[in-house]
Amino acid sequence: MTTGHVFMAASLDGFVARLDHALDWLMKQKTGGEDHGYDTFMENIDGLVMGSGSFKTVIGFDDWPYKKPVIVMSGSMSEKDIPADLMDSVKLTRLGPKDIMSSLNREGWKRAYVDGGKIVQSFIREGLVEDITISHIPILIGSGIRLFGEIDQDIDLQLQSSRTFGSGLVQSHYTLLKNS
Amino acid sequence: MTTGHVFMAASLDGFVARLDHALDWLMKQKTGGEDHGYDTFMENIDGLVMGSGSFKTVIGFDDWPYKKPVIVMSGSMSEKDIPADLMDSVKLTRLGPKDIMSSLNREGWKRAYVDGGKIVQSFIREGLVEDITISHIPILIGSGIRLFGEIDQDIDLQLQSSRTFGSGLVQSHYTLLKNS
Repeated sequence: MTTGHVFMAASLDGFVARLDHALDWLMKQKTGGEDHGYDTFMENIDGLVMGSGSFKTVIGFDDWPYKKPVIVMSGSMSEKDIPADLMDSVKLTRLGPKDIMSSLNREGWKRAYVDGGKIVQSFIREGLVEDITISHIPILIGSGIRLFGEIDQDIDLQLQSSRTFGSGLVQSHYTLLKNS
Repeated sequence: MTTGHVFMAASLDGFVARLDHALDWLMKQKTGGEDHGYDTFMENIDGLVMGSGSFKTVIGFDDWPYKKPVIVMSGSMSEKDIPADLMDSVKLTRLGPKDIMSSLNREGWKRAYVDGGKIVQSFIREGLVEDITISHIPILIGSGIRLFGEIDQDIDLQLQSSRTFGSGLVQSHYTLLKNS
């Protein structure tokens, strides 16, 4: 089965974006010159799975940031919501997490980048995430879209490594232990 | 003014206790032999401020764990709720965070340990917390009492240091920057 991998920044109080998806609190961080390992992470995935909220945020950027295929989970979007120049690299799906991973597995994906707060939550709940790299940003924003959500039972993690950056970012890499 | 200091463990998803105040997820961690700096922290405070929820959890322990005075914030508890052997070390107050700190300042306290999720939130909101040491435990528990709560505006932090332990605990020390 294709494995899910999470690489996310979150405020110290656990939010990946404000409620309106804004990332101003993240963008203002003085991280210039720091290599947080994002490029290396991206080289080692076959593509991305994200929700419509994240997708809409990303198409608002000046440039499309991804070189790998992107699967957008949405029950309401249609092909016409995808800009013409992205038709080759973006696909919509109405499948749930498990069916998406089965489908990607058949297409030869080994590792999928699972992105966006709500999507990450649903993939974690269904046991489809193998590891999480979380970069804690030194700010409290009080409310927003949570990185982690409700779960049926505790999920134990194993810390693989942790490192800090001059900007105050603390990046920790965890694998998820299967609760059998 | 007396300064507030926070030294808390939280699940990676940001909870300091389950909704019923249970700490089983924390107690099960294999941290034997690790010195997380708690004793050193306790030596450098003049006493503790906590809520009635934390107090009720702590008096359920086999032994009273504190050698320093404890102020319990509660609108409903009365002297009869305090065990007789703790009458000398525990005081109840109905004051709010700012008035408590003014009062403690008059009594000569320089540094107060601010403990318990809801209490920490209210002291942070009122700008009474100088620094936070947060130990992230490698587990997701999904729901519970949050370490951080709603705030009126963002609070920037400055990372002072971060270290990891063999148990998978990541402990980071932040000072809170005053938003002027």
